[in-house]
Amino acid sequence: MRRMIPTTFSSKFQGAVSMNALRCYVSEFISTFFFVLAAVGSVMASRKLTAGDVTGPFSVLLPAIANAFALSSSVYISWNVSGGHVNPAVTFGMAVAGRISVPTAMFYWTSQMIASVMACLVLKVTVVEQHVPIYKIAGEMTGFGASVLEGVLAFVLVYTVFTANDPRRGLPLAVGPIFIGFVAGANVLAAGPFSGGAMNPACAFGSAMIYGSFKNQAVYWVGPLLGGATAALVYDNMVVVPAAEDDRGSSTGDATGV
Amino acid sequence: MRRMIPTTFSSKFQGAVSMNALRCYVSEFISTFFFVLAAVGSVMASRKLTAGDVTGPFSVLLPAIANAFALSSSVYISWNVSGGHVNPAVTFGMAVAGRISVPTAMFYWTSQMIASVMACLVLKVTVVEQHVPIYKIAGEMTGFGASVLEGVLAFVLVYTVFTANDPRRGLPLAVGPIFIGFVAGANVLAAGPFSGGAMNPACAFGSAMIYGSFKNQAVYWVGPLLGGATAALVYDNMVVVPAAEDDRGSSTGDATGV
Amino acid sequence: MRRMIPTTFSSKFQGAVSMNALRCYVSEFISTFFFVLAAVGSVMASRKLTAGDVTGPFSVLLPAIANAFALSSSVYISWNVSGGHVNPAVTFGMAVAGRISVPTAMFYWTSQMIASVMACLVLKVTVVEQHVPIYKIAGEMTGFGASVLEGVLAFVLVYTVFTANDPRRGLPLAVGPIFIGFVAGANVLAAGPFSGGAMNPACAFGSAMIYGSFKNQAVYWVGPLLGGATAALVYDNMVVVPAAEDDRGSSTGDATGV
Amino acid sequence: MRRMIPTTFSSKFQGAVSMNALRCYVSEFISTFFFVLAAVGSVMASRKLTAGDVTGPFSVLLPAIANAFALSSSVYISWNVSGGHVNPAVTFGMAVAGRISVPTAMFYWTSQMIASVMACLVLKVTVVEQHVPIYKIAGEMTGFGASVLEGVLAFVLVYTVFTANDPRRGLPLAVGPIFIGFVAGANVLAAGPFSGGAMNPACAFGSAMIYGSFKNQAVYWVGPLLGGATAALVYDNMVVVPAAEDDRGSSTGDATGV
Repeated sequence: MRRMIPTTFSSKFQGAVSMNALRCYVSEFISTFFFVLAAVGSVMASRKLTAGDVTGPFSVLLPAIANAFALSSSVYISWNVSGGHVNPAVTFGMAVAGRISVPTAMFYWTSQMIASVMACLVLKVTVVEQHVPIYKIAGEMTGFGASVLEGVLAFVLVYTVFTANDPRRGLPLAVGPIFIGFVAGANVLAAGPFSGGAMNPACAFGSAMIYGSFKNQAVYWVGPLLGGATAALVYDNMVVVPAAEDDRGSSTGDATGV
Repeated sequence: MRRMIPTTFSSKFQGAVSMNALRCYVSEFISTFFFVLAAVGSVMASRKLTAGDVTGPFSVLLPAIANAFALSSSVYISWNVSGGHVNPAVTFGMAVAGRISVPTAMFYWTSQMIASVMACLVLKVTVVEQHVPIYKIAGEMTGFGASVLEGVLAFVLVYTVFTANDPRRGLPLAVGPIFIGFVAGANVLAAGPFSGGAMNPACAFGSAMIYGSFKNQAVYWVGPLLGGATAALVYDNMVVVPAAEDDRGSSTGDATGV
Repeated sequence: MRRMIPTTFSSKFQGAVSMNALRCYVSEFISTFFFVLAAVGSVMASRKLTAGDVTGPFSVLLPAIANAFALSSSVYISWNVSGGHVNPAVTFGMAVAGRISVPTAMFYWTSQMIASVMACLVLKVTVVEQHVPIYKIAGEMTGFGASVLEGVLAFVLVYTVFTANDPRRGLPLAVGPIFIGFVAGANVLAAGPFSGGAMNPACAFGSAMIYGSFKNQAVYWVGPLLGGATAALVYDNMVVVPAAEDDRGSSTGDATGV
Repeated sequence: MRRMIPTTFSSKFQGAVSMNALRCYVSEFISTFFFVLAAVGSVMASRKLTAGDVTGPFSVLLPAIANAFALSSSVYISWNVSGGHVNPAVTFGMAVAGRISVPTAMFYWTSQMIASVMACLVLKVTVVEQHVPIYKIAGEMTGFGASVLEGVLAFVLVYTVFTANDPRRGLPLAVGPIFIGFVAGANVLAAGPFSGGAMNPACAFGSAMIYGSFKNQAVYWVGPLLGGATAALVYDNMVVVPAAEDDRGSSTGDATGV
């Protein structure tokens, strides 16, 4: 969804503090709050149910399903209010692609981070005898390898978000959140035991802040942000026809050549 | 969906006993009956399959998936008959927001409670050698903490219901039940071992009545009802633009500023 | 979807052997073939993966998810060709409600049964060292109790099918199969260890025929057929406003009073 | 989706190297890359989480859910760019049905194979201490039996793809990917322990190439390609009314006789 964005910084900033924009930030807060509550809470639940066995299959299976379900719903409830980013990597990709202004993106990030910290705080306070977990990379993985993996996961996630948000594609827009959630679920199932499967810097940040350790935090920022930015650039410039050269006379069998 | 609701109490009551209204109550009954049958039945099934191990991962995984699937379908089959509340907390939120009249809400509650009790009765009678389970809070949790958690879960659930029911959002309305079910599934996965993950006073009531103990029943009423009411107020007043000040000229990147 | 059905038996029979009708039967065959292949095959897969442990949680979890996924898709691929019944109980309900003629219903049943038998045959032939399983009721259950449970499950399933097929409800019709599959999944999770969770006489018949024993087969016919017929009657006469007395001026809050 | 395809080979080839076509190939690459990453990665994750137990239920459960989620999303992100084939068997079926030209199909295959190899390479490089797994058939199965099973699975998958892509069916087209993913998930749950449940020659090829062994590779090509071609022929000629003899006056109850 390309929009006319104000060209001067002051007008961009004004747009970023309008009533409508404030509603967007509240919506992002609610969505991210719920997503992190479910994503991190399911890890705590899984840990309790397996009596602390954090290396077994349930430590990934339960959070994977929770991620898929929770991200679908979180994105849905903010769908056409804030766009349902729920993830700084998504916001970063949107800003890189020019879909939102930089001041707005910074406010989105702020909402998402605060929501994540608060969700982890609620978990810490209500669930006694359990500490809030943080995302870890497997012992045998290198920080670089984990970052690459997280970056690839975020690439796919942000790419799916761009697909779902693109009215040129003619896809009924409200089905998009389902696939965004599915991507997250599949990613956790594939990469959970290796890189942590966070794909979401806000989620990683909030849990790390409440847990009290920012070990390997860079992995969950560098990888996803680069992955998100790359997805935005690939989507807009390589795969989907820019509006200017929209060629609808495709001769390829099944392609509509959007 | 705002509707003109009769202004006097007698006309509201008349509207609450019309033929159409009676069909709504039957529909709510059927939906709630099926949901509780599946939600509680899956706990019994899980218990049988794990030879009574009610603290292991399956005691949450199976009911979580059953909750997601069953709530999606239950809401769907009543979608544009009664609105598919299936949950007194949802009905309470709708009443607080003025979407339905108080007499109607009371009839909805009655249908939901009776349906829940009957579903648990059917389970008790057909499944021998198994007693109907009740929702429990974990030993180390306080009643207050569990209530807060249940309230937060219900907040998200009711918020999602409001999103799905709002035609101003332009979301194809029949996809909504999927996300409502997904929220329930994610909530059970995150909070099941801690607060029980009921989010639904009718569900908790029916199982408690058939089981014969109302221990901690307040947790499953106070939290969810407050959470549902809060969600209704937040949705209508903070996030979504009230019809009066509908400003579609949003300058925020991805927001349509509904 | 009410259609003008021919009134004389000979014209009904003629309609039941037209080219279009034959395509419907082939479509039902393909859908039922795939559904049974997945539903029964997942039980065999689960048995192999747990080294024969047919009483553990995986014996229900894997088939439940397979049921949900497979029924959604099976119904979808026949959605507006044959209506995607895939289940004699659904066809029976449709016939009771007058949606299809009796000769057509009998041909649907024939297609479904043959498809089920062939699917089990394919499994028996390709998967060596494994016998095709049959649906069993738990030892402590009575045949009557299991039949009641299966009937209730089928009631909900057929009711959901009627909801999904009703254009008066204004629900985008292609989303229906998702909920039909979800109902099946929830039902298996709730009732699988108790009554077998078949809900589908064709599925039960095909596996019993290939396995070579029709023990308790009546449970999987009587219950579901009665449940399906009841759902049809309740849907058409009690919940949804018959076309004649369609009253759209509902005063109930959230109900559109279809 | 039938399109006018150029009649001479040179014009077909020209159409296959146009700018639009190149975008399709990139899109297929991205979709297939992600799908294989998730499908194969989830097997590696499952293996790590179960400490190498590749015969237990998790070795199928986690990949099945990952397959369903990942295939849904992969198909979705290429939905109306390349058609979202993600699978040489789908492309083969489309070519057999005349939906795409042969040169285009060959380029699709090339994109899919390269993407699969690269995804497995990324997994091999980032996830240390784990070798990329290959699809195996169970010891007691014959190659022929496994090929038949894989063929049947691919038949259903391609049939579902044809259903989802057919605008004559009037199904909101963006919901299709959900059912395509569900079919994959159900198939893996039913056949995973027996024939490997690949259904996708590209997926099998990529993992085999990185693993370094093409044992039984034929099973994953012959079966699925024949299954895909058969599905295309059955769909176009037997079940769905060809445009020429489109008879909308169906007398069959629930069928619209497309």
